[in-house]
Formats: sequence, C-alpha cells, structure tokens
Amino acid sequence: MPRISAPTDVVVRMTRTTICGTDLHILGGRVPTCEPGRVLGHEGVGVVAAKGPGVMMFGIGDKVLISCISACGQCDRCRRLKYSRCLCGGWMLGHTIDGTQAEFVRIPFADHSLYLLPDEADEDALVMLSDVMPTAFECGVLGGQVQAGRTVAIIGAGPVGMAALLVAQLYAPAAIIVIDMDEARLQIAVGLGATTTVDGLGGRARKAVVDLTRGRGVDTAIDTVGLPASTALCRAIIGTGGRIASVADHAVAADRCLEHLWDRNITADSRLVDTISTLMLLNMVRSEKLDPSRLVTHHFKLDRIRDAYETFAHSAATRALKVIVEVPPPSTDGRGLAGGS
Amino acid sequence: MPRISAPTDVVVRMTRTTICGTDLHILGGRVPTCEPGRVLGHEGVGVVAAKGPGVMMFGIGDKVLISCISACGQCDRCRRLKYSRCLCGGWMLGHTIDGTQAEFVRIPFADHSLYLLPDEADEDALVMLSDVMPTAFECGVLGGQVQAGRTVAIIGAGPVGMAALLVAQLYAPAAIIVIDMDEARLQIAVGLGATTTVDGLGGRARKAVVDLTRGRGVDTAIDTVGLPASTALCRAIIGTGGRIASVADHAVAADRCLEHLWDRNITADSRLVDTISTLMLLNMVRSEKLDPSRLVTHHFKLDRIRDAYETFAHSAATRALKVIVEVPPPSTDGRGLAGGS
Amino acid sequence: MPRISAPTDVVVRMTRTTICGTDLHILGGRVPTCEPGRVLGHEGVGVVAAKGPGVMMFGIGDKVLISCISACGQCDRCRRLKYSRCLCGGWMLGHTIDGTQAEFVRIPFADHSLYLLPDEADEDALVMLSDVMPTAFECGVLGGQVQAGRTVAIIGAGPVGMAALLVAQLYAPAAIIVIDMDEARLQIAVGLGATTTVDGLGGRARKAVVDLTRGRGVDTAIDTVGLPASTALCRAIIGTGGRIASVADHAVAADRCLEHLWDRNITADSRLVDTISTLMLLNMVRSEKLDPSRLVTHHFKLDRIRDAYETFAHSAATRALKVIVEVPPPSTDGRGLAGGS
Amino acid sequence: MPRISAPTDVVVRMTRTTICGTDLHILGGRVPTCEPGRVLGHEGVGVVAAKGPGVMMFGIGDKVLISCISACGQCDRCRRLKYSRCLCGGWMLGHTIDGTQAEFVRIPFADHSLYLLPDEADEDALVMLSDVMPTAFECGVLGGQVQAGRTVAIIGAGPVGMAALLVAQLYAPAAIIVIDMDEARLQIAVGLGATTTVDGLGGRARKAVVDLTRGRGVDTAIDTVGLPASTALCRAIIGTGGRIASVADHAVAADRCLEHLWDRNITADSRLVDTISTLMLLNMVRSEKLDPSRLVTHHFKLDRIRDAYETFAHSAATRALKVIVEVPPPSTDGRGLAGGS
Repeated sequence: MPRISAPTDVVVRMTRTTICGTDLHILGGRVPTCEPGRVLGHEGVGVVAAKGPGVMMFGIGDKVLISCISACGQCDRCRRLKYSRCLCGGWMLGHTIDGTQAEFVRIPFADHSLYLLPDEADEDALVMLSDVMPTAFECGVLGGQVQAGRTVAIIGAGPVGMAALLVAQLYAPAAIIVIDMDEARLQIAVGLGATTTVDGLGGRARKAVVDLTRGRGVDTAIDTVGLPASTALCRAIIGTGGRIASVADHAVAADRCLEHLWDRNITADSRLVDTISTLMLLNMVRSEKLDPSRLVTHHFKLDRIRDAYETFAHSAATRALKVIVEVPPPSTDGRGLAGGS
Repeated sequence: MPRISAPTDVVVRMTRTTICGTDLHILGGRVPTCEPGRVLGHEGVGVVAAKGPGVMMFGIGDKVLISCISACGQCDRCRRLKYSRCLCGGWMLGHTIDGTQAEFVRIPFADHSLYLLPDEADEDALVMLSDVMPTAFECGVLGGQVQAGRTVAIIGAGPVGMAALLVAQLYAPAAIIVIDMDEARLQIAVGLGATTTVDGLGGRARKAVVDLTRGRGVDTAIDTVGLPASTALCRAIIGTGGRIASVADHAVAADRCLEHLWDRNITADSRLVDTISTLMLLNMVRSEKLDPSRLVTHHFKLDRIRDAYETFAHSAATRALKVIVEVPPPSTDGRGLAGGS
Repeated sequence: MPRISAPTDVVVRMTRTTICGTDLHILGGRVPTCEPGRVLGHEGVGVVAAKGPGVMMFGIGDKVLISCISACGQCDRCRRLKYSRCLCGGWMLGHTIDGTQAEFVRIPFADHSLYLLPDEADEDALVMLSDVMPTAFECGVLGGQVQAGRTVAIIGAGPVGMAALLVAQLYAPAAIIVIDMDEARLQIAVGLGATTTVDGLGGRARKAVVDLTRGRGVDTAIDTVGLPASTALCRAIIGTGGRIASVADHAVAADRCLEHLWDRNITADSRLVDTISTLMLLNMVRSEKLDPSRLVTHHFKLDRIRDAYETFAHSAATRALKVIVEVPPPSTDGRGLAGGS
Repeated sequence: MPRISAPTDVVVRMTRTTICGTDLHILGGRVPTCEPGRVLGHEGVGVVAAKGPGVMMFGIGDKVLISCISACGQCDRCRRLKYSRCLCGGWMLGHTIDGTQAEFVRIPFADHSLYLLPDEADEDALVMLSDVMPTAFECGVLGGQVQAGRTVAIIGAGPVGMAALLVAQLYAPAAIIVIDMDEARLQIAVGLGATTTVDGLGGRARKAVVDLTRGRGVDTAIDTVGLPASTALCRAIIGTGGRIASVADHAVAADRCLEHLWDRNITADSRLVDTISTLMLLNMVRSEKLDPSRLVTHHFKLDRIRDAYETFAHSAATRALKVIVEVPPPSTDGRGLAGGS
C-alpha cells in the first residue's frame, strides 16, 4: 500500500490501467534503469484516495487521469515544457517508482501529473490518454510536422502506429499510408482512416510508396518500429524537405543512421512524450472529435493480468492492440488495508 | 478580345466564373481604385488560348485555375510570400485590368498566377479556389490561428463565413460556433459542420457565446462581416490570449477598434489573401478531403449574368451562397474573332 | 510583517526594489482593482527569510529575484505559459496583495515566481529583470516579431522604451528608430543603440519615418506610450505586413483603433508580460551580453522613497529612467520582530 | 563566351569571384554529377552584359550579386521557398552549367537568382553573400535554431564555421564555443566573436565542452566538418532537447548516425542552402551590422587562379579562409568579342 511521502503526492485507487510495449521491454531486461521487483505500469484512470498538504488542484474522491510523465512544473526544463526531461521527475511510474498495475499507486507532483475527469467518463477511451495518444501526437504528428494537404507514411500498425493514424487526421493530410507486415492489422488501419496500406518493410514496400507518391516520396515518415529495416525504409521513402519522426518504444536503442539524407534537406526528430497535449486530447475526446477507445481490443480483470500480458505480447496471434486491465474496488478501503484487518 | 501584352501573359478562354461580394462593392462605388467600364471578376476556370514567349509552365489547351492575385514571384514581397502586396501586381483582375466575367481574359504573370487542372476536374468546386477558399483559409484560419482542441467563432454565415467553416475543420477545433442573423443560413451551417449556431449579433448573442464557453470566451473569432456590430461582438466574446481575424470583403473599411483588449492578451490580424494555400487546397480537393462545391447554390449562363448578380445581391431572399456563371464555348475561336471573319 | 499563509509561500527580506509607471497609475487612482492602503511595488531582489512547507526550490538565506507575476504553474493557462493570466495568481504584488516597497514581502507560488541569484550579483541590473526588461522583451520584441535585418520603431523613450531598445538589439534589426518628444531622452537612446531618433509624435515625425524608410514604413512598431497620438503614429508608419505591439503601462486603457489597417496586412498584438523570458534574460546578463543597469539613473534609501517617487514622477525635469530603492537590513531580523524582542 | 539561351537568362561580366570547398571536391572527383571540363565557381559579383527578353528586374550595366542557387521561382518547391530543390534549377553554376570563375557567365532564371547592388558596394564583402554566408545562416543558425541566451558549439573553424560564428551572433546566444584542431584558427575565432574555443575533436574536447556547460551539453551543435569524428562529437556534446545542424561541404556524404540520441529529445537537421536569407544579409551588410569581409584572407587576379586554388587547398599552411579572385575588365567588351572586330 503506497503512502504519501512528499507534500505534492497523491495516492490514487486505480480503476483501469493498460500495458505498454515498454512494459514488455522491462520484462525482457532491456530497461536497465528499472530495478527488479518494480510494480509496472504508467497508464491509467482512478480515484484520489489520499493527498499531501501541498496538493492544490485535487480532492479526495476526484476521478483522475494519470499521466505517464510525472513533472514538477517548476524546474528550468518544465518551464520550457520539456516535462519528459524534468530535473526532478520525468518517467517515474513503473520505472523508478512503483506503477499503476496495482490497486493503489502513489503519484508524485500530482498537481502537474493528474487530470480531473468527469464521473461519467468513458474510462477505456481515457486510459489511452495516459501515454499512447499523446506519444503518437507529440512524437509522431508534431515531431513529424504533419500538415494539411501533405502525405504521411506511418511505419508499423501496432498501438502507437494506430494512435498516430487517429491523431494525424487532426491535421488533415491529403494521404496517410500505413505500412506493416501484418495484413490483418492493415485492414484495421483502413477502418481507422488510412488512405492506403502497404504490406512489408523491404524493397517492394519502398517501390510501392515511391509509386504512390509519383516519385516524390512522403512529406512525413513516422517510424513506430525503430528497427534497422524501418529506419532504412524511412530513409528510402522520405521526400525532399521531409521530416522523419522516431516514435519507437521507450527501450529500443535504434540505429537511426541518416547518411545520404543530406542531399534531400531532411530533418529527423526523436523525442520522448512530454504530455503537453493531454488537455487538448481530453478536449477532443469530450467534444467527440476523437475516439481513442477504437484502439482497445481486449479486457481483463487485474487478477488475470498475466493473461493480459500474454495476449498483448502475442499480438500477431491475438490481434491485440491495447488491452484494458480493470481494477475492481478493493474488498476493504485503503485505510482498512493500512490498519491490517 | 484581350491580347498578350507582356511576355509573361496568358490569355485564357473562360469556362466558368463566379461573383464575389467585392464585385458588389465595386458596383456600389465603394472601390475607388477600380475605374468605370472595367470588366469585373477575379475568379474562374478556363483553357489557355494564347501565351507569351516568357511563359514556362503552361501550354495552349491547358485547363487552368485562375488565382484572384496576380503576383510576379520575383519582387521582395513575393519572396516573403506576400503575393497580395506584390510590387508589380497583386489584385489586378476585375480591378485594375479587365477581369474574368467574360469569354476571354488576359492573365499577367501567368506562371505564378495559374494552376494546372486535370481535364476531368469538377469545375464548380475549383472555381471556389480562386478566392473564397484561400481567403477563408489564410485570412481566417491561419490569421486566426485555429488549433486542434480549441474553440472558434465565425461571425457571418455568407460565402466567406461558410468557406471558413469548411476549412477551419482541417485544423480540428473542438467547437465551431457560427453566428448570423439569418436562421436559414444557420441551418445550412449546421449541415456544413458547425457544432453550434447563435442567432444575432447583439447582447443576446454575446451572452450565448459566453455561456457556451463557460465564461472563457473563444480562442479564435473570425469576423467575415466587418461592421461595427460584428467588431464589437468579436471584442466581447474573445477569450484571454485569443486571436481576432478580420476577413471582411475587400472594400469594407471597417472600424476595428481594439480598446480594452489589452487586458486580455489579444492579437488582431487583418490581411488580404496571398493565395499561398492554393496548391494545398487543390490537394485537399483532389484527395476528397474537402468539397468546396458545397458552397455553390445557383448556376447561370454568361448571357444571364445580370440575373446571377441579382440572385447573389439578394441572398437573404434567394438563399444564394456562391453562384456559378458558366461561359459557353465561343461561336468561333479566338483567332477567328481577331481575324474578323 | 508578512507571514506564510500558504504552503507555497516564501517571505523575502528585500534588499532592492524600484518604481514602475504602474505604481504612479495606482496612486493616480487609475487602477480600480487595487485597494487603498496597499503596499506598492512588484519588482525587487532580496533574501529568503521564511518558507512554507510546500516550497521545493528555495531555502532560507537564498538570494532571489522576484517576478512581477505570481503564477501557480499548474493551471490550464500556466501550462500554456500564459502566466500573466494564471487562474490562481497573475499580477498580485502591489496590486491585490502587499508589494515589494517594504522591508519584507510575502511571495505566493514561490517556486514559480522567484529566481535564484548568485550572492555576488549586480542587484541594480537584476531588479530590472522583475518587470521592465521581460515586459519590453515579451510584449515589445516578441509581440512585435522583431527580426534580423528588419526595421523597428519604438514610440516613447521612457524606461519601457529604453528597455525595448536594449532587448530589440538581441534580434539584430537593421535599424531601430526611437521616437519621443524629449530631446534629452533621444540623446540617451543613441547611446543605448538607436540607429536614428525622431523628435515628436505628430505629422513631422510621421513624415520623417516615412522618409527614413523610403516610403515603406517600418516592419515593427512598438508603442510604449499608449495614447491616441502614439496609436495614430503607429498606424501611419507601419509598413505592409507589419506588426504593431502595444506595451503601454498596466493601467492605460488606450484606444488602439485599427480601422484602415486592413489594406496593409497588419497584425496588432497587445499582451501583459508573462515573465517567460526571465531565465533567458538572466543568462544574457550573466554572460555579459546585456547590461540592464544602463536603465538606472537614481538611487534612494527606503526611508526616502517619497523622494524616489517625486524623482520618477517628474522624469522630464529629473531625467530619471529607473530609480533604485535600496532597502537596508532591518535593525532586527524577521524572527526578532515576530518574537517582539 | 556564354550566350543567352532562354528568355530568362542574363550574361554577367564577372568582377570578383571566390573558391568554395565544393570546388575542391569537384577537382578531387567526388562530385559525380559534375562533368569534366566544366568551368567551376558558383559565387561572385559582376555587371549585367546581356539579358533575355523575359528578364524584368535587371538592365544592362547593373551591378549584381550572383546567388549560388538558380531557382525558377515558379515551381511547387520554389513556392515553398525550397529553392535549392527547384524542379527546374537548383545548384547549377559550376556544376551542371559553366560557372563564375571566368570573365563571363550565363545566369539562368536571372530575376530570381541575382540581386541588385549599389555601384559603390564593397565587393569583397558581398562575394561572401553568394554562398558561404547564407549557407552558414540557413543551414547552421536556422537549421540549428540558435536562440537568445542559449549555448552554441560550432565544429570546424574553416570558412563555413567562421561564417556561422559571425551570423550566430545575430541571434544573441549567451555562449558560442568554437572547436577545431588548428590553434591558429581558434585564435582568429576569438577575434570574430567566439566566447570560448576548444582544441581537438576527441575525448578531451568532449570533456571540455561538458565541463564548460556544467554537464548540460549545448543547445545547438553546428557541424561544418561532416566527418565521423565531428559527428561523434556532436552526439556527445548535444544537450537534452538540443538540435544538431549539419553544414558540411556539398560533396561530403557523411555518416550522421543518430543512435542513442533518442533518450535526449534531439532533432537533427541537414539541408542545402536555399538562399532565402540573401536579402536580409544584404540589409545587414548595408546597415553595417555584419561585415563578411572579415572572412577574406587573400586576393588573386583571375590569371593566377591556380595560385588561388593552391592557397585555398593548403589552408593549414597558408591560413587561408576565403580567397578573392579579381576579374579584370576584358580587353574588349562582350560585343566586341562576339562581333570579332
């Protein structure tokens, strides 16, 4: 049972969480900054169960969205809106402190890291706003400078790629080409708004994109895969003056060589999500201009989270995108647990 | 019959044109820079009938869109993309030289002022790209900095306001409030994508917008009316940090006082269209993301252009938005006319 | 003696403060939101004497710069960096709570509203960073989009105008024209970097600027006067595509009519300072690229603050720009006072 | 003797030209797109000797600056101001057509590729505006987003690095660190405005920059070397949220790997110069805010151009930065030559 340890902390009783590709990387031992035994999870929705004396914006019982980034809001970097690089926080949940795949979680810098939700909110949709949607928007759409009337390629039709597909449409590109090796996912992409799909990451895919763009290449390439093949594909299909945005999973140290790009005025952008778009995305969901629940494919209860991980890890077979993990109300409230009954 | 008078001229045989509110201002004597006897019209689609030796990009027989702005592309202002302020050109057609409401028209600086169209193009839709659509986009949406998730008010549901309604949606605002005194037009606005409509320009309208925005005001106010009542309404409903964009008709010298705005960090922007967005809008039409033909309400032949003007001038009664004027092929071709056979 | 009243408060023992034109407006009864009896002052440097339990970034004894804006850093507006419009704070000091022209002052939202200074700092220079320098930079240079190679006119050679003159040079305009009616101030402006000066606000001044710019007008006009004559002058001298920035004193409700500007693509910007540039300006002072102490003309002790006000209020006679008010160490420390010894 | 071959051509009689590192790459066989026998040179100043009928902006006898980029101004890319990628032109001079190291040169798209100079212009200074100054400004300062108060590292103190040093100061960074292996050049850099210099490109240089920035790294790294060592150094010293700009010589196909940058929100930008800043730089020279003649170290006559190349190629020994090649008036004028009198 987590406890308030700083005046700006809140303890949230979780109601829903989800699993991120990064969680799989941690379990695979590819995130050395995360110590063994850590409770995973950096996404979710819940209810404020306890708060420190320095918390100004939230009260006990408030329904809240948890941001994957815990930012102090005061340091030099936070003032430049680089919350992911907060000198006091950053990506802490399920990484350097225990995370959200639990009944309760401690949230540092709560005023800056939680968002008030209406009681009747669609929690499935809103859990997507903890990480995957702002990541796709900030690292993909903003980093890739998607613009009205231009052409976008999204490499990878997993959860991040599909989220990028949804939010890229907010900027009205003329065409969105989704590229993946899984035909079933490509069909889903069409349903979510792709104007064209291309099967594969190799030479045939390259040729297909070049043909589709009449030899010009795309204006924006969003790489959600982060492997050599996707990097090479981005380099091959990006047009003159184009922009490559890397949105690979947190733990992938991809080789993003840019040699030979110089002759085409290319800019490459790689960033962690700062969750500066969360309020805007909440507005879009509230006004029904965006429906992130379309990413949700499976539901599990917290006591079956191992099945949830299995389903998410084997997405080619299960066709999983995002799996929701529902957290039932605890049999006793937090105080009861603390009291040892 | 217009003739090539500079190496960079083209003569276009018109196939379709339309009427702008500015044309009414000229007829009303409110545009002193336009001399009596001028052939009006600065919008249209046609076919290249003759070209000067300096024209590089177009050939006889090409179907072309005519931009309302004729820009040299070489002067200091054109290099800053301020085509409307071109030191050699600017708004010339139907203003300082004869315009497009005719069988033939001379287009100066043709390489920079025409756009190649495919033969099978929907001409009704494309005539909207000569002026009303780029004006709504550049002066309204860009000038007003419409952004995803924010709130926009459009004052005036005439052709420019309706065009602004269509193109504002390219930037995914959470809400677009259309304000007008004509209930019929407001119903059309709902069909074109308005999330709310407000009837009237006075105190009740003001209160309605304030209530709709829970006291915050709107982030962007686009004034397509340009009269004291609309200016006052913009000032009253603009929220902190907001942006007022003036897109009034060419000849309206509106009083856009900004007193008392200082206390809310307001920026006011007024500009003529530079037609820098024409290529992008053509892309959007081609990829079926935008359908400007929804602004077209009436069709006339060129020999009934007086009826077209009547219909357009009395839009409250006729419910006209944009009226298309079709130009039939001339009985003889241009050369024949010139030769006097 | 002010006391900690919220966990995020700090009490600062003042060492230096100054007087702003806004203070004169308050004394003249032109700021109705400020109640009688208020201790004035929103600028200064001092030492942390007491702190609330929620203050993370500062400790007792730290030397600090006080920002004129007290911002919570957490609300929707703060997250958009609109600190002046903070929903919890904003301009509070010497306005809605007691200010800095005193031995001690309470600073709300201290983590977000103070800046750590090195002990050996030049306090005269740094007091200028509480308000006048960020105001000139944000409202004038950013609001007016000063750019390399372009032409700037600054209307008014008072403290704000002179500060704008200093910081405009950070953006390398080709020419800075300073306009005022006081010949002595214009001479000082030349010493501070003006490339040309113009005497007067009327028709002759207008003609002088038009001639200097060979008929083009200026790219940026920064109005630090905010009276009808300066507004009219800005309108007359602004060039095509130009930008007018209003940086008038806090309490001036100027009439900034923009009629007849539409024909030149003008943007008008008016904003309160958000103090988002304070860290940058501190860097510039530290690296000796900027010397704001050049604005300081007079020094007084706190017990002679009436003389300081007289000197500042009659600047035409005294040639005052900014007057520093030094606050000597109290005879007893804060604790002593509180304890009643 | 070059001749007018298109209506938009001009023939310029050269008065001054210079040598670029790219010319050495061509001579070294590293620019396969340049055919043997080509007259080299893409920089220079001269006088209009002949003009085609489509040239609007220049007359015989005009003194002109020649841009290294010949852009049509009409194509899709030119309208986005991507002149280097002009679909009809681009880098042509001394590459795909004969260049400026000659008595006469043909300039395609003259209206868009020449700039009128006053007769009394300092030609040494202005030759620097053909290529090296806009390259340093656009690819280095704009590409690297140099900002007021931030820290910049420039790798390489050759002509491009020194030019970047001059123009970076237009944006008022707090510190500019120049890094090179040649101590003599570093001393020159101090004279041109470097706040610190660092000797070497290896581990010691890396440590020096890290120490200078107190572990934060620099905000902008401008790589004018383009070799693996400089690329590795940029990666090592760039701070969180920083920007790497590649401004290597035209023909260097550098390996600019970006692996391991993802964890610091880095953007990498590589572009060819578009010469969109030429007019601004001309303004800065005219208003004496910028003196590019400080890059000039040597002068030669055209008949000793081999010595000029030798001097430029062995800059470590000769301490050459830019070498001016003066072109004396031809013994007979162009007409005479053509007419054979």
